[in-house]
Amino acid sequence: MVGATLGTKLTQLGHQVKMGSRTANNEKAAKWVSEAGATASQGTFADAASFGDIVFNCTKGDGAMDAVKAAGESNLNGKILVDVSNPLDFSKGMPPSLFPELSNTNSLGEEIQKTFPGTKVVKALNTMNCALMVNPTLVPGSHDLFMCGNDEAAKATVTDIVKSFGWTSIIDLGDIKAARAMEALLPIWVRLMMKFQSPNFNFKIVR
Amino acid sequence: MVGATLGTKLTQLGHQVKMGSRTANNEKAAKWVSEAGATASQGTFADAASFGDIVFNCTKGDGAMDAVKAAGESNLNGKILVDVSNPLDFSKGMPPSLFPELSNTNSLGEEIQKTFPGTKVVKALNTMNCALMVNPTLVPGSHDLFMCGNDEAAKATVTDIVKSFGWTSIIDLGDIKAARAMEALLPIWVRLMMKFQSPNFNFKIVR
Repeated sequence: MVGATLGTKLTQLGHQVKMGSRTANNEKAAKWVSEAGATASQGTFADAASFGDIVFNCTKGDGAMDAVKAAGESNLNGKILVDVSNPLDFSKGMPPSLFPELSNTNSLGEEIQKTFPGTKVVKALNTMNCALMVNPTLVPGSHDLFMCGNDEAAKATVTDIVKSFGWTSIIDLGDIKAARAMEALLPIWVRLMMKFQSPNFNFKIVR
Repeated sequence: MVGATLGTKLTQLGHQVKMGSRTANNEKAAKWVSEAGATASQGTFADAASFGDIVFNCTKGDGAMDAVKAAGESNLNGKILVDVSNPLDFSKGMPPSLFPELSNTNSLGEEIQKTFPGTKVVKALNTMNCALMVNPTLVPGSHDLFMCGNDEAAKATVTDIVKSFGWTSIIDLGDIKAARAMEALLPIWVRLMMKFQSPNFNFKIVR
Protein backbone atom coordinates (compact mmCIF):
# COMPACT_ATOMS: atom_id res chain seq x y z
CA MET A 1 0.00 0.00 0.00
CA VAL A 2 2.84 2.39 0.84
CA GLY A 3 4.71 1.49 -2.34
CA ALA A 4 1.59 1.83 -4.50
CA THR A 5 0.74 5.21 -2.97
CA LEU A 6 4.26 6.58 -3.41
CA GLY A 7 4.56 4.98 -6.85
CA THR A 8 1.32 6.53 -8.07
CA LYS A 9 2.36 9.97 -6.84
CA LEU A 10 5.76 9.64 -8.49
CA THR A 11 4.21 8.67 -11.83
CA GLN A 12 1.82 11.62 -11.54
CA LEU A 13 4.89 13.84 -11.09
CA GLY A 14 6.39 12.48 -14.32
CA HIS A 15 8.74 9.82 -12.99
CA GLN A 16 9.13 6.32 -14.36
CA VAL A 17 8.40 3.82 -11.58
CA LYS A 18 9.04 0.07 -11.43
CA MET A 19 7.33 -1.72 -8.55
CA GLY A 20 9.44 -4.55 -7.14
CA SER A 21 8.03 -7.68 -5.54
CA ARG A 22 9.28 -11.14 -4.62
CA THR A 23 8.11 -12.38 -8.01
CA ALA A 24 8.15 -10.58 -11.38
CA ASN A 25 4.40 -11.03 -11.92
CA ASN A 26 2.97 -10.19 -8.48
CA GLU A 27 -0.80 -9.68 -8.79
CA LYS A 28 -1.05 -6.57 -6.65
CA ALA A 29 1.80 -4.99 -8.56
CA ALA A 30 0.07 -5.87 -11.85
CA LYS A 31 -3.10 -4.20 -10.63
CA TRP A 32 -1.09 -1.11 -9.64
CA VAL A 33 0.64 -1.01 -13.06
CA SER A 34 -2.69 -1.21 -14.87
CA GLU A 35 -4.01 1.73 -12.84
CA ALA A 36 -0.88 3.89 -12.77
CA GLY A 37 -0.39 4.04 -16.53
CA ALA A 38 2.34 3.98 -19.12
CA THR A 39 5.21 5.11 -16.89
CA ALA A 40 4.53 2.31 -14.39
CA SER A 41 6.00 -1.17 -14.63
CA GLN A 42 6.74 -4.13 -12.37
CA GLY A 43 9.42 -6.71 -11.75
CA THR A 44 11.37 -8.47 -9.04
CA PHE A 45 13.01 -6.53 -6.23
CA ALA A 46 16.26 -6.84 -8.21
CA ASP A 47 14.55 -5.59 -11.41
CA ALA A 48 13.19 -2.55 -9.56
CA ALA A 49 16.51 -1.76 -7.89
CA SER A 50 18.34 -2.11 -11.21
CA PHE A 51 15.79 0.12 -12.98
CA GLY A 52 15.68 2.98 -10.51
CA ASP A 53 18.02 5.90 -10.08
CA ILE A 54 16.42 6.24 -6.67
CA VAL A 55 15.03 3.24 -4.79
CA PHE A 56 12.27 3.37 -2.16
CA ASN A 57 12.08 0.61 0.44
CA CYS A 58 8.37 0.40 1.29
CA THR A 59 8.32 -3.16 2.57
CA LYS A 60 6.93 -4.38 5.87
CA GLY A 61 9.38 -4.45 8.76
CA ASP A 62 9.48 -8.22 9.11
CA GLY A 63 10.50 -8.63 5.46
CA ALA A 64 12.46 -5.45 4.89
CA MET A 65 16.00 -6.82 5.20
CA ASP A 66 15.17 -9.84 3.00
CA ALA A 67 13.66 -7.51 0.41
CA VAL A 68 16.63 -5.15 0.22
CA LYS A 69 19.02 -8.10 0.13
CA ALA A 70 16.97 -9.56 -2.74
CA ALA A 71 17.29 -6.19 -4.48
CA GLY A 72 21.01 -6.88 -4.59
CA GLU A 73 24.10 -4.90 -3.67
CA SER A 74 25.22 -4.34 -7.27
CA ASN A 75 21.79 -2.95 -8.18
CA LEU A 76 21.84 -0.56 -5.21
CA ASN A 77 25.47 0.51 -5.29
CA GLY A 78 25.98 4.26 -5.58
CA LYS A 79 22.23 4.90 -5.51
CA ILE A 80 19.96 6.67 -3.08
CA LEU A 81 17.73 4.30 -1.10
CA VAL A 82 14.87 6.05 0.67
CA ASP A 83 13.96 3.86 3.62
CA VAL A 84 10.28 4.40 4.43
CA SER A 85 9.70 1.20 6.39
CA ASN A 86 9.63 0.48 10.11
CA PRO A 87 10.79 -2.59 12.07
CA LEU A 88 7.34 -3.22 13.54
CA ASP A 89 6.65 -6.57 15.16
CA PHE A 90 2.91 -7.29 15.09
CA SER A 91 3.36 -10.91 16.20
CA LYS A 92 2.08 -10.13 19.71
CA GLY A 93 -0.89 -8.06 18.54
CA MET A 94 -1.64 -4.36 18.86
CA PRO A 95 0.07 -2.12 19.58
CA PRO A 96 3.20 -3.51 17.90
CA SER A 97 6.70 -3.34 19.35
CA LEU A 98 9.92 -2.82 17.41
CA PHE A 99 12.14 -5.79 16.61
CA PRO A 100 14.71 -5.69 19.45
CA GLU A 101 17.69 -6.21 17.15
CA LEU A 102 16.53 -3.23 15.04
CA SER A 103 15.72 -0.73 17.79
CA ASN A 104 17.22 1.42 20.53
CA THR A 105 20.93 0.91 19.68
CA ASN A 106 20.22 0.07 16.05
CA SER A 107 17.51 0.66 13.46
CA LEU A 108 16.30 -0.64 10.14
CA GLY A 109 17.75 2.41 8.43
CA GLU A 110 21.16 1.83 9.97
CA GLU A 111 21.06 -1.90 9.25
CA ILE A 112 20.39 -1.25 5.56
CA GLN A 113 23.23 1.30 5.48
CA LYS A 114 25.61 -1.18 7.17
CA THR A 115 24.58 -3.95 4.75
CA PHE A 116 25.08 -1.72 1.69
CA PRO A 117 27.91 0.70 2.48
CA GLY A 118 28.01 1.88 -1.15
CA THR A 119 24.34 2.92 -1.05
CA LYS A 120 23.20 6.34 0.19
CA VAL A 121 20.44 5.47 2.64
CA VAL A 122 18.06 8.30 3.54
CA LYS A 123 15.45 7.61 6.20
CA ALA A 124 12.32 9.61 5.51
CA LEU A 125 8.51 9.46 5.45
CA ASN A 126 8.35 6.60 7.99
CA THR A 127 6.56 8.60 10.70
CA MET A 128 3.22 9.02 8.97
CA ASN A 129 0.44 7.29 7.09
CA CYS A 130 1.11 6.80 3.36
CA ALA A 131 -1.80 9.00 2.25
CA LEU A 132 -0.22 11.85 4.21
CA MET A 133 3.24 11.12 2.75
CA VAL A 134 2.09 12.20 -0.70
CA ASN A 135 -0.51 14.77 0.41
CA PRO A 136 0.60 16.76 3.45
CA THR A 137 -2.52 18.94 3.25
CA LEU A 138 -4.54 15.99 4.61
CA VAL A 139 -3.48 17.40 7.98
CA PRO A 140 -4.13 21.16 8.19
CA GLY A 141 -1.45 23.70 8.98
CA SER A 142 2.27 23.22 9.38
CA HIS A 143 3.74 19.90 10.50
CA ASP A 144 7.02 18.13 10.06
CA LEU A 145 8.75 15.51 7.97
CA PHE A 146 11.86 14.05 9.62
CA MET A 147 14.86 12.94 7.59
CA CYS A 148 18.33 11.55 8.25
CA GLY A 149 21.23 10.02 6.39
CA ASN A 150 24.99 10.16 6.02
CA ASP A 151 25.12 11.76 2.55
CA GLU A 152 24.23 15.46 2.33
CA ALA A 153 23.66 15.44 -1.44
CA ALA A 154 21.36 12.43 -1.14
CA LYS A 155 19.33 14.21 1.54
CA ALA A 156 19.10 17.28 -0.70
CA THR A 157 17.75 15.13 -3.54
CA VAL A 158 15.18 13.46 -1.27
CA THR A 159 14.26 16.90 0.09
CA ASP A 160 13.47 17.99 -3.47
CA ILE A 161 11.29 14.91 -3.95
CA VAL A 162 9.27 15.42 -0.76
CA LYS A 163 8.93 19.12 -1.58
CA SER A 164 7.40 18.02 -4.88
CA PHE A 165 4.87 16.07 -2.76
CA GLY A 166 3.99 19.34 -1.02
CA TRP A 167 6.14 19.15 2.10
CA THR A 168 7.45 22.49 3.36
CA SER A 169 8.80 21.70 6.85
CA ILE A 170 11.59 19.13 6.71
CA ILE A 171 13.76 18.51 9.76
CA ASP A 172 17.18 16.99 9.04
CA LEU A 173 18.15 15.07 12.18
CA GLY A 174 21.67 14.31 11.01
CA ASP A 175 23.38 11.05 10.18
CA ILE A 176 21.69 7.68 9.65
CA LYS A 177 21.96 6.81 13.35
CA ALA A 178 19.05 9.19 13.86
CA ALA A 179 16.92 6.51 12.15
CA ARG A 180 16.65 4.86 15.56
CA ALA A 181 15.02 8.03 16.89
CA MET A 182 12.68 8.30 13.89
CA GLU A 183 11.62 4.65 14.06
CA ALA A 184 11.09 5.05 17.83
CA LEU A 185 8.23 7.45 17.01
CA LEU A 186 6.12 4.54 15.80
CA PRO A 187 4.96 3.34 19.23
CA ILE A 188 3.41 6.72 20.03
CA TRP A 189 2.15 7.05 16.45
CA VAL A 190 0.26 3.76 16.80
CA ARG A 191 -1.11 4.79 20.23
CA LEU A 192 -2.32 8.10 18.79
CA MET A 193 -3.86 6.37 15.77
CA MET A 194 -5.77 4.04 18.11
CA LYS A 195 -6.90 7.00 20.22
CA PHE A 196 -7.98 9.22 17.33
CA GLN A 197 -9.29 6.29 15.24
CA SER A 198 -7.68 8.04 12.32
CA PRO A 199 -4.21 8.18 10.74
CA ASN A 200 -4.69 11.81 9.72
CA PHE A 201 -2.33 13.47 12.18
CA ASN A 202 1.33 14.33 12.30
CA PHE A 203 4.10 15.49 14.58
CA LYS A 204 5.18 19.11 14.75
CA ILE A 205 8.14 20.38 16.69
CA VAL A 206 7.24 23.75 18.24
CA ARG A 207 9.97 26.13 19.39
CA MET B 1 17.46 19.52 38.86
CA VAL B 2 14.07 18.17 37.74
CA GLY B 3 12.98 17.56 41.32
CA ALA B 4 14.13 21.01 42.46
CA THR B 5 12.37 22.71 39.55
CA LEU B 6 9.09 20.86 40.12
CA GLY B 7 9.43 21.23 43.90
CA THR B 8 9.92 24.98 43.68
CA LYS B 9 6.92 25.38 41.39
CA LEU B 10 4.78 23.25 43.72
CA THR B 11 5.75 25.32 46.76
CA GLN B 12 4.97 28.50 44.81
CA LEU B 13 1.52 27.05 44.16
CA GLY B 14 0.99 26.52 47.88
CA HIS B 15 1.90 22.86 48.25
CA GLN B 16 4.09 21.39 51.00
CA VAL B 17 7.03 19.60 49.37
CA LYS B 18 9.57 17.22 50.88
CA MET B 19 12.58 16.47 48.69
CA GLY B 20 13.77 12.89 49.04
CA SER B 21 17.38 11.79 48.57
CA ARG B 22 19.49 8.74 49.39
CA THR B 23 20.43 10.42 52.68
CA ALA B 24 18.34 12.64 54.96
CA ASN B 25 20.80 15.52 54.82
CA ASN B 26 21.73 15.65 51.15
CA GLU B 27 23.55 18.92 50.43
CA LYS B 28 21.75 19.78 47.20
CA ALA B 29 18.40 19.13 48.87
CA ALA B 30 19.44 21.38 51.79
CA LYS B 31 20.32 24.15 49.36
CA TRP B 32 16.94 23.73 47.66
CA VAL B 33 15.11 23.81 51.01
CA SER B 34 16.88 27.03 52.02
CA GLU B 35 15.84 28.65 48.74
CA ALA B 36 12.31 27.27 48.47
CA GLY B 37 11.11 28.50 51.84
CA ALA B 38 8.98 27.41 54.76
CA THR B 39 6.84 24.84 52.92
CA ALA B 40 9.93 22.98 51.68
CA SER B 41 11.68 20.24 53.60
CA GLN B 42 13.98 17.30 52.95
CA GLY B 43 14.50 13.70 53.99
CA THR B 44 15.24 10.24 52.69
CA PHE B 45 13.34 8.79 49.75
CA ALA B 46 11.22 6.93 52.33
CA ASP B 47 10.61 10.16 54.30
CA ALA B 48 9.47 11.96 51.16
CA ALA B 49 7.20 9.09 50.05
CA SER B 50 5.68 8.87 53.52
CA PHE B 51 5.14 12.65 53.67
CA GLY B 52 3.52 13.15 50.27
CA ASP B 53 -0.06 12.59 49.22
CA ILE B 54 1.35 12.63 45.69
CA VAL B 55 4.89 11.47 44.95
CA PHE B 56 7.00 12.59 41.97
CA ASN B 57 9.78 10.33 40.74
CA CYS B 58 12.37 12.75 39.29
CA THR B 59 15.41 10.51 39.58
CA LYS B 60 17.87 9.65 36.85
CA GLY B 61 17.04 6.56 34.82
CA ASP B 62 19.95 4.48 36.04
CA GLY B 63 18.93 4.97 39.67
CA ALA B 64 15.17 5.24 39.32
CA MET B 65 14.16 1.71 40.32
CA ASP B 66 16.53 1.76 43.32
CA ALA B 67 15.10 5.12 44.38
CA VAL B 68 11.46 4.07 44.22
CA LYS B 69 12.27 0.80 46.00
CA ALA B 70 14.02 2.82 48.72
CA ALA B 71 10.88 4.94 48.98
CA GLY B 72 9.16 1.77 50.10
CA GLU B 73 5.95 -0.01 49.14
CA SER B 74 4.09 0.88 52.33
CA ASN B 75 4.89 4.57 51.86
CA LEU B 76 3.64 4.51 48.27
CA ASN B 77 0.61 2.26 48.67
CA GLY B 78 -2.65 3.85 47.53
CA LYS B 79 -0.88 7.02 46.42
CA ILE B 80 -0.35 8.65 43.07
CA LEU B 81 3.22 8.40 41.80
CA VAL B 82 3.97 10.76 38.92
CA ASP B 83 6.82 9.19 36.98
CA VAL B 84 8.78 11.97 35.29
CA SER B 85 12.00 10.04 34.71
CA ASN B 86 13.39 8.24 31.67
CA PRO B 87 15.47 5.05 31.40
CA LEU B 88 18.32 6.82 29.65
CA ASP B 89 21.67 5.05 29.41
CA PHE B 90 24.45 7.60 28.98
CA SER B 91 27.20 5.02 29.54
CA LYS B 92 28.12 4.96 25.84
CA GLY B 93 28.05 8.76 25.43
CA MET B 94 25.73 11.02 23.48
CA PRO B 95 23.13 10.50 22.29
CA PRO B 96 21.95 8.09 25.02
CA SER B 97 20.03 4.90 24.39
CA LEU B 98 17.28 3.45 26.57
CA PHE B 99 18.07 0.59 28.95
CA PRO B 100 17.04 -2.48 26.91
CA GLU B 101 15.15 -4.09 29.79
CA LEU B 102 13.11 -0.89 30.22
CA SER B 103 12.25 -0.14 26.61
CA ASN B 104 10.26 -1.35 23.60
CA THR B 105 8.25 -4.12 25.32
CA ASN B 106 8.57 -2.51 28.75
CA SER B 107 9.21 0.92 30.26
CA LEU B 108 10.24 2.55 33.49
CA GLY B 109 6.66 3.63 34.10
CA GLU B 110 5.37 0.08 33.66
CA GLU B 111 8.15 -1.39 35.79
CA ILE B 112 7.28 0.94 38.68
CA GLN B 113 3.59 0.04 38.31
CA LYS B 114 4.43 -3.70 38.30
CA THR B 115 6.68 -3.29 41.35
CA PHE B 116 4.02 -1.35 43.28
CA PRO B 117 0.61 -2.66 42.17
CA GLY B 118 -1.11 -0.68 44.95
CA THR B 119 0.30 2.62 43.68
CA LYS B 120 -1.37 4.66 40.96
CA VAL B 121 1.46 5.38 38.55
CA VAL B 122 0.91 8.25 36.12
CA LYS B 123 3.57 8.85 33.48
CA ALA B 124 3.77 12.54 32.63
CA LEU B 125 6.17 15.42 31.96
CA ASN B 126 9.00 13.12 30.82
CA THR B 127 9.11 14.37 27.23
CA MET B 128 10.42 17.87 27.91
CA ASN B 129 13.04 19.90 29.71
CA CYS B 130 12.23 20.65 33.36
CA ALA B 131 12.07 24.43 32.84
CA LEU B 132 9.33 23.83 30.28
CA MET B 133 7.50 21.40 32.59
CA VAL B 134 6.63 24.22 34.98
CA ASN B 135 6.45 27.02 32.42
CA PRO B 136 4.90 25.92 29.13
CA THR B 137 5.05 29.50 27.79
CA LEU B 138 8.83 29.04 27.35
CA VAL B 139 7.79 27.55 24.00
CA PRO B 140 5.35 29.80 22.15
CA GLY B 141 1.94 28.69 20.98
CA SER B 142 0.15 25.42 21.59
CA HIS B 143 2.06 22.21 22.25
CA ASP B 144 1.35 18.98 24.05
CA LEU B 145 1.90 17.20 27.31
CA PHE B 146 1.48 13.42 27.10
CA MET B 147 0.10 11.37 29.98
CA CYS B 148 -0.77 7.75 30.67
CA GLY B 149 -1.72 5.51 33.55
CA ASN B 150 -4.18 2.83 34.60
CA ASP B 151 -6.22 4.93 37.07
CA GLU B 152 -8.58 7.52 35.58
CA ALA B 153 -9.02 9.47 38.82
CA ALA B 154 -5.25 9.65 39.30
CA LYS B 155 -4.83 10.99 35.76
CA ALA B 156 -7.54 13.59 36.47
CA THR B 157 -5.66 14.72 39.59
CA VAL B 158 -2.35 14.96 37.72
CA THR B 159 -4.14 16.82 34.93
CA ASP B 160 -5.27 19.42 37.47
CA ILE B 161 -1.67 19.76 38.70
CA VAL B 162 -0.19 20.28 35.23
CA LYS B 163 -3.00 22.70 34.39
CA SER B 164 -1.91 24.68 37.46
CA PHE B 165 1.55 24.80 35.84
CA GLY B 166 -0.07 26.39 32.78
CA TRP B 167 -0.59 23.37 30.53
CA THR B 168 -3.67 23.50 28.33
CA SER B 169 -3.15 20.68 25.82
CA ILE B 170 -2.87 17.31 27.57
CA ILE B 171 -3.07 14.09 25.56
CA ASP B 172 -4.11 11.00 27.53
CA LEU B 173 -2.55 8.04 25.71
CA GLY B 174 -4.33 5.42 27.79
CA ASP B 175 -3.02 2.83 30.21
CA ILE B 176 0.48 2.69 31.70
CA LYS B 177 1.76 0.55 28.80
CA ALA B 178 1.79 3.78 26.79
CA ALA B 179 4.77 4.78 28.94
CA ARG B 180 6.94 2.80 26.52
CA ALA B 181 5.73 5.09 23.71
CA MET B 182 6.32 8.23 25.79
CA GLU B 183 9.81 7.17 26.89
CA ALA B 184 10.60 6.27 23.26
CA LEU B 185 10.30 9.97 22.43
CA LEU B 186 13.56 10.65 24.23
CA PRO B 187 15.91 9.57 21.42
CA ILE B 188 14.41 12.13 19.03
CA TRP B 189 14.15 14.70 21.83
CA VAL B 190 17.90 14.40 22.43
CA ARG B 191 18.64 14.57 18.69
CA LEU B 192 16.54 17.72 18.38
CA MET B 193 18.16 19.28 21.45
CA MET B 194 21.59 18.64 19.92
CA LYS B 195 20.42 20.12 16.59
CA PHE B 196 18.76 23.22 18.05
CA GLN B 197 21.38 23.63 20.81
CA SER B 198 18.44 24.44 23.06
CA PRO B 199 15.92 22.47 25.12
CA ASN B 200 13.19 25.03 24.46
CA PHE B 201 11.02 23.04 22.08
CA ASN B 202 8.17 20.59 22.39
CA PHE B 203 6.08 18.10 20.48
CA LYS B 204 2.69 18.99 19.08
CA ILE B 205 0.31 16.55 17.46
CA VAL B 206 -1.40 18.29 14.53
CA ARG B 207 -4.64 16.91 13.10
